[in-house]
Amino acid sequence: MAKEGTEMTEETEHMIEKNGAKETETVVSAGDAKEMRAVILSGFGGLNKLRVTKKAMPEPQEGEVKIRVKACGLNFLDLMVRQGNIDSPPKTPVVPGFECSGIVEAMGENTKGFEIGDRVMAFVNYNAWAEVVCTPLDYVYNMPDDMTFPEAAAFSMNFVAAYMMLFEVANLREGMSVLVHSAGGGVGQAVAQLCSTIPSVTVFGTASSFKHEAIKDSVTHLFDRNIDYVQEVKKISPEGVDIVLDCLSGENTGKGLGLLRPLGTYILYGSSNMVTGETKSFFSLAKSWWQVEKVNPIKLYEENKVIAGFSLLNLLFKQGRCGQVKTVVEKLFSLYNQKKIKPVVDSLWALEEVKEAMQRIHDRGNIGKLILDVEKSPTPLMASDSTETSEAGEEEEEHEGDSDNKERMPFIQ
Amino acid sequence: MAKEGTEMTEETEHMIEKNGAKETETVVSAGDAKEMRAVILSGFGGLNKLRVTKKAMPEPQEGEVKIRVKACGLNFLDLMVRQGNIDSPPKTPVVPGFECSGIVEAMGENTKGFEIGDRVMAFVNYNAWAEVVCTPLDYVYNMPDDMTFPEAAAFSMNFVAAYMMLFEVANLREGMSVLVHSAGGGVGQAVAQLCSTIPSVTVFGTASSFKHEAIKDSVTHLFDRNIDYVQEVKKISPEGVDIVLDCLSGENTGKGLGLLRPLGTYILYGSSNMVTGETKSFFSLAKSWWQVEKVNPIKLYEENKVIAGFSLLNLLFKQGRCGQVKTVVEKLFSLYNQKKIKPVVDSLWALEEVKEAMQRIHDRGNIGKLILDVEKSPTPLMASDSTETSEAGEEEEEHEGDSDNKERMPFIQ
Repeated sequence: MAKEGTEMTEETEHMIEKNGAKETETVVSAGDAKEMRAVILSGFGGLNKLRVTKKAMPEPQEGEVKIRVKACGLNFLDLMVRQGNIDSPPKTPVVPGFECSGIVEAMGENTKGFEIGDRVMAFVNYNAWAEVVCTPLDYVYNMPDDMTFPEAAAFSMNFVAAYMMLFEVANLREGMSVLVHSAGGGVGQAVAQLCSTIPSVTVFGTASSFKHEAIKDSVTHLFDRNIDYVQEVKKISPEGVDIVLDCLSGENTGKGLGLLRPLGTYILYGSSNMVTGETKSFFSLAKSWWQVEKVNPIKLYEENKVIAGFSLLNLLFKQGRCGQVKTVVEKLFSLYNQKKIKPVVDSLWALEEVKEAMQRIHDRGNIGKLILDVEKSPTPLMASDSTETSEAGEEEEEHEGDSDNKERMPFIQ
Repeated sequence: MAKEGTEMTEETEHMIEKNGAKETETVVSAGDAKEMRAVILSGFGGLNKLRVTKKAMPEPQEGEVKIRVKACGLNFLDLMVRQGNIDSPPKTPVVPGFECSGIVEAMGENTKGFEIGDRVMAFVNYNAWAEVVCTPLDYVYNMPDDMTFPEAAAFSMNFVAAYMMLFEVANLREGMSVLVHSAGGGVGQAVAQLCSTIPSVTVFGTASSFKHEAIKDSVTHLFDRNIDYVQEVKKISPEGVDIVLDCLSGENTGKGLGLLRPLGTYILYGSSNMVTGETKSFFSLAKSWWQVEKVNPIKLYEENKVIAGFSLLNLLFKQGRCGQVKTVVEKLFSLYNQKKIKPVVDSLWALEEVKEAMQRIHDRGNIGKLILDVEKSPTPLMASDSTETSEAGEEEEEHEGDSDNKERMPFIQ
């Protein structure tokens, strides 16, 4: 507690200095029952913009479900949010996080289908990294009985995105081939598992070499992420592949399109090239990519190719496709119950360890999903460790961003 | 016969004058059994570049099937070939035509699966508009017993293209909506019929008003081709449609993409804006379109949209996907045998009437497919009619091409 208070003061000063804006969240006194712990992002930038604080407890509005959160998912996208490198960045301070699992604690009016005590998985438009979350019932799903809370938090974004890309955008069928980058990450593992539910699907994956031993059984062909995957894929399959899932973008868009077989589909679902140590707007950088990577539709016509973009968050929160996502979640839960898929959890972290968790995903250390476990206690040394990691992390990011664009990682939006 | 001889002389002189090249096809004497009638395109340009002549009978090479042709399909693409407005135009003189039906007359070595006398439907890389055709067995399919030869020639390109676009590129499923231009044409009618095999599919179609009575039962909503279809579709379905099939291109690419619902697919499968009376290369014009219509991939990502190009001829003859097309043909024949689909034949024409047939497709007069019936005799007045139509047609095209880009028609490539 004392530590938290100290951190807050430092952060606030830092914010005023850097952003010229004052933090506005309500900090409730420790004695108030109507408060909760939450991770807060005070402004865009490095790891030191994150901390755990107490906030007023949210109450459900009409159509909303109030969830006592047990576990939250951490995605590469959360790093991009932290840096402000996304389209329509949120106003800070903000509680990050787009997915969680937990227990229904209360409901607003018109929330048929849920009862207090239900074990649920949910999408949230920010605010997931907290002890309590309220979100419209369209984004809440009753979990399978056998699914653990960390599994559910590892499941929602990664498996829904992987499923929709493979089966609704790209129409994966028997005998096809798929290239997925960051095969060891949350989406990569979801893609590999879903491909295994269809007969004779060949999966090409790229991943850091140290992960190969751990994930080699999940994909057909595994390449080191630093080698020329185009050449390696063509050695094995000269005609290319049917589906390319790209979270790297930049020059990889052209490479991916070039690797497609006729009638093949390239799907752009993120860009980890965006992550640097600097705070730039998504679009200012985006423009410079697409100048280079813009696709000529007549080439698609001549070559019989398909290019698609996929953003799960836009689909959910801007385009109102909750019904379609719900159908997908039901299909996925059925596959889970048949033991055909199972989310891979890399590690569990206390809310107070969010900086270390972010550093791990940034450094591509994870195999599968990083989970914030709300009930987990941080290690005694966490607080000071965290501060050190924070600054080290930020410096490292700037170094990477400026000098080496090989440091690419996936995100799901 | 005498008439044909006269025509040939005129044409040859015309060619030398206009193209500075001499015709090289072997003209066999009338008494030779090893000759056949064929439509020949002597050079790129107007209708007067087409005539019927006699050519040496082709003999099947290894892996080829020799077909006594009964019926050939005429597509908008054939007009573009005539004008030289395609990517990689053929060397002239050339026998046009990409699809036919008929009876197997002989086979080369290694043509397992076919026997003399088989009733077949076939794709040909040019040369279809003749009494006899040889084509590799990968492009030949045994026809259903109940299918007539004109039906088969109306079936191959239109239904295969419609099926692959709807089910392999766009993944049509229950409850979806489709927009198709030229709903009265061969592809349009194939699309409408295939959509009716899936429950609750809404089909929006555009067509000339005079066709509406004839085709109104085949689509859900029908709009005049000259009205603002974007506005009309949005009145009925404010969110747009799931699939847009575009054979118009130009400004319609942007309109089509704008009409897509999230996760929707726009497919460009041709461009009738290319057809003018002038001979220009496909690419010189193409470049100017795509400068305007180039699609920004980041927009696809934000909006969850898909853009695809589809060229059946490239798929077959450049990209070697005969196996995949064969599977599609089998599925389509099964639907035909179940009486779920039935090609719509607009009219039958003698080879000698090819100019009138082309004029009809150019003038958008057809409902369904135009067929060249190889055994049909031309009307007695055909020859002089044809000459007149030829010149009139050419002038009319130039007029339309220069002054009015509303004259758009579909083609399949």
